[in-house]
Amino acid sequence: MTVRDRRSRPVVAIVGAGFGGLWAAKALRDAPVDVLMIDRRNFHTFYPLLYQLAAAELEPQSVAYPVRSIFRNQHNVRFLLADVERVEPTANTLHTSEGPVRYDYLILTPGSTTNYFGIPGAAEHAWPLRTLEDGMALRDHILSRFEAAAREPDPERRAKMLTFLIVGGGPTGVEFAGALSELIVGPLQKDYRELDLHEVSVVLIEQGPRILSSYPARLSDWAARRLAKLTVDLRLGEAVEAVEPDGVVLRGGERLLADTVVWVAGVRGDPAMDAWGLPLGRSGRVVVEPTLQVENAPNIFVVGDAAVLPDQPLPLVAQVAIQQGKTAAANIKALLSGQPCRAFRYRNLGDMAVIGRGAAVFSRGALQLTGFLAWILWAAVHIFNLIGFRNRLVVLATWAVEYLTFERGSRLLRTPGAAARLVSAR
Amino acid sequence: MTVRDRRSRPVVAIVGAGFGGLWAAKALRDAPVDVLMIDRRNFHTFYPLLYQLAAAELEPQSVAYPVRSIFRNQHNVRFLLADVERVEPTANTLHTSEGPVRYDYLILTPGSTTNYFGIPGAAEHAWPLRTLEDGMALRDHILSRFEAAAREPDPERRAKMLTFLIVGGGPTGVEFAGALSELIVGPLQKDYRELDLHEVSVVLIEQGPRILSSYPARLSDWAARRLAKLTVDLRLGEAVEAVEPDGVVLRGGERLLADTVVWVAGVRGDPAMDAWGLPLGRSGRVVVEPTLQVENAPNIFVVGDAAVLPDQPLPLVAQVAIQQGKTAAANIKALLSGQPCRAFRYRNLGDMAVIGRGAAVFSRGALQLTGFLAWILWAAVHIFNLIGFRNRLVVLATWAVEYLTFERGSRLLRTPGAAARLVSAR
Repeated sequence: MTVRDRRSRPVVAIVGAGFGGLWAAKALRDAPVDVLMIDRRNFHTFYPLLYQLAAAELEPQSVAYPVRSIFRNQHNVRFLLADVERVEPTANTLHTSEGPVRYDYLILTPGSTTNYFGIPGAAEHAWPLRTLEDGMALRDHILSRFEAAAREPDPERRAKMLTFLIVGGGPTGVEFAGALSELIVGPLQKDYRELDLHEVSVVLIEQGPRILSSYPARLSDWAARRLAKLTVDLRLGEAVEAVEPDGVVLRGGERLLADTVVWVAGVRGDPAMDAWGLPLGRSGRVVVEPTLQVENAPNIFVVGDAAVLPDQPLPLVAQVAIQQGKTAAANIKALLSGQPCRAFRYRNLGDMAVIGRGAAVFSRGALQLTGFLAWILWAAVHIFNLIGFRNRLVVLATWAVEYLTFERGSRLLRTPGAAARLVSAR
Repeated sequence: MTVRDRRSRPVVAIVGAGFGGLWAAKALRDAPVDVLMIDRRNFHTFYPLLYQLAAAELEPQSVAYPVRSIFRNQHNVRFLLADVERVEPTANTLHTSEGPVRYDYLILTPGSTTNYFGIPGAAEHAWPLRTLEDGMALRDHILSRFEAAAREPDPERRAKMLTFLIVGGGPTGVEFAGALSELIVGPLQKDYRELDLHEVSVVLIEQGPRILSSYPARLSDWAARRLAKLTVDLRLGEAVEAVEPDGVVLRGGERLLADTVVWVAGVRGDPAMDAWGLPLGRSGRVVVEPTLQVENAPNIFVVGDAAVLPDQPLPLVAQVAIQQGKTAAANIKALLSGQPCRAFRYRNLGDMAVIGRGAAVFSRGALQLTGFLAWILWAAVHIFNLIGFRNRLVVLATWAVEYLTFERGSRLLRTPGAAARLVSAR
């Protein structure tokens, strides 16, 4: 058989090629182990830029990169394209769609999924924004609403087609609202001369008293003013009580009519984990020891969005996953050499959110930046973190062209007919 | 209503945003008409580079461009995203999925589709390469075969997974064979260290005695030697008698086992046209007058792959469609000013086919070029013809990076599961 068989070295299986998984694997580069990376997709998704995919600002290949290419030069990493179905800790075995996989150490980093908090209709009628497919589907839907509006004579129906409700005023909601607004007042305005763009509204709904609630209040206020300048309609202190096929119902009974409701209000652990047989805590996440180990299974680590540290509430961001991935790798190396595991400590390198072209907010301890300088810092950090030389180059080139021409991504609309043919073709 | 209503000017409806349709619309820029461009997709597909999409060399946005953006600065063009269901010449009306459309002049340029010539199993089991969706689906399939082979212990089954049969030795077959071969010996070899790439075969099957039969024999021979150098297995003078789920049967009974059969052996008129009520000739194409008008319907023109001129056999290439589109537009302007229509005359600007990195064949009358010079000419012509500034820039940047690093496109695999979720999500 061609798959290499090196039974002599312990196998570290890593489930999930997100930030936690990639950085764990990289940290094991020189360890005397074989790493088996397992993911149901053949690519890593750069989640922080997914909203730019949905806003037709970036193309899929700029926010995703094939796992095999990432590890092309790290020879102790193999890749398996498979779905994990169950973990059997007593037998050190993962059961996958491609058969059982034996491990000596296991790092689980399956990430998270959208949390609808049981709001009626939300899972059925709102658009999530968690995966590459979500981003592409949402983009298709948004573009299709403009095509539909362009041939719709009735102003009320047209207004509903051109209303975009975004539920959740965290970084993703804020960034997406800004990008969507700029897509509309920029390229779409030029492409749909028959439409009056005053009929378009982008509405950001946030339950709390301010957007970006985890940031200093000064930055929240700055971001809110900036969004208002981009004609985003901010609805603070408003809770969505139900999502319906044609809009949302707010607490208090007000109805907002819209063909598009985007749900970025919360995340929870991947429901696939429910079947894995691990101790799940609040929001379907795994409760781990301070060392990121699972109780009673010291060779299993959980990192990233899927892990909860009882005494350390952490934001669900890439930084946390990256640092935890490194800690898990370090602890496996410690176990291999008979050393004790160390507890995870989060070091916040700063929070950043971008609000349209050339503007962002940045916060790190006492340092607070707004505007162009924060945006440049944001762009540098994101491009630096994008996996792979080619991705960095393409993203940089795309941004440069966009900045110079104010032109967006290709805006190719995969029509439902075409998409259906695509799948049924085989 | 927002859609502009200018009844005073005659309406020229153009069905199809391919080469013929785009160039006809551009040629009507200063004519006293309103142009209504109708297509079932919101983008133009640059068909000559589709094989590079399938070979993971280019991304969708490099071979497609939104129609509305193309005509952003031509104010007498409107766009309608719709399927044409029927033409009613006596009422000057098109019936579309979005309702009836009245026209004064009509240019039909629906293009062509794959011709399987009734070979049993071909339509069911072979992969076509005619649309953007075809290209994406084929690319996913090819990449999935490598993932499957990487976990397949049985050498015979692995060989079948890694055999790629291309049926048809015309320019598309030759270009795709070259690109696929280079994808495999380049990036895939690096990404699939567990595979022995000697197990991979790319086989090009051509019924005639030589590939590129419309080119001078010297160029065919050069191209054949070049493909052989790229380890493409050329099977000349072999006809496919049947396509089966696991390969093809050749005339004479030989079976070639393969998970992948790509069918680029012929084209025919779009079957949608069968229902349009026009005089169809051989291969489902419309027989037109020398002026490109439809008999007894002098305000209807057919151009491009969908048209047959009885006394002028023409290749089905972009050049013909472009020149015919311009002629149709000129003839409509002639009709508007009471002048006679002129007959279409094809002026061949040269034929070109690329065979892998830095090599092509070019033929124009007595001029015959091979190798790098022909390739540079090819690259210049294609980039020049790509629609839109941004596309040219991205293609150029992509090629430059690829040439310098020998790295290919993103190779993101849209897994069947993910694709199915995408469609069923709504």
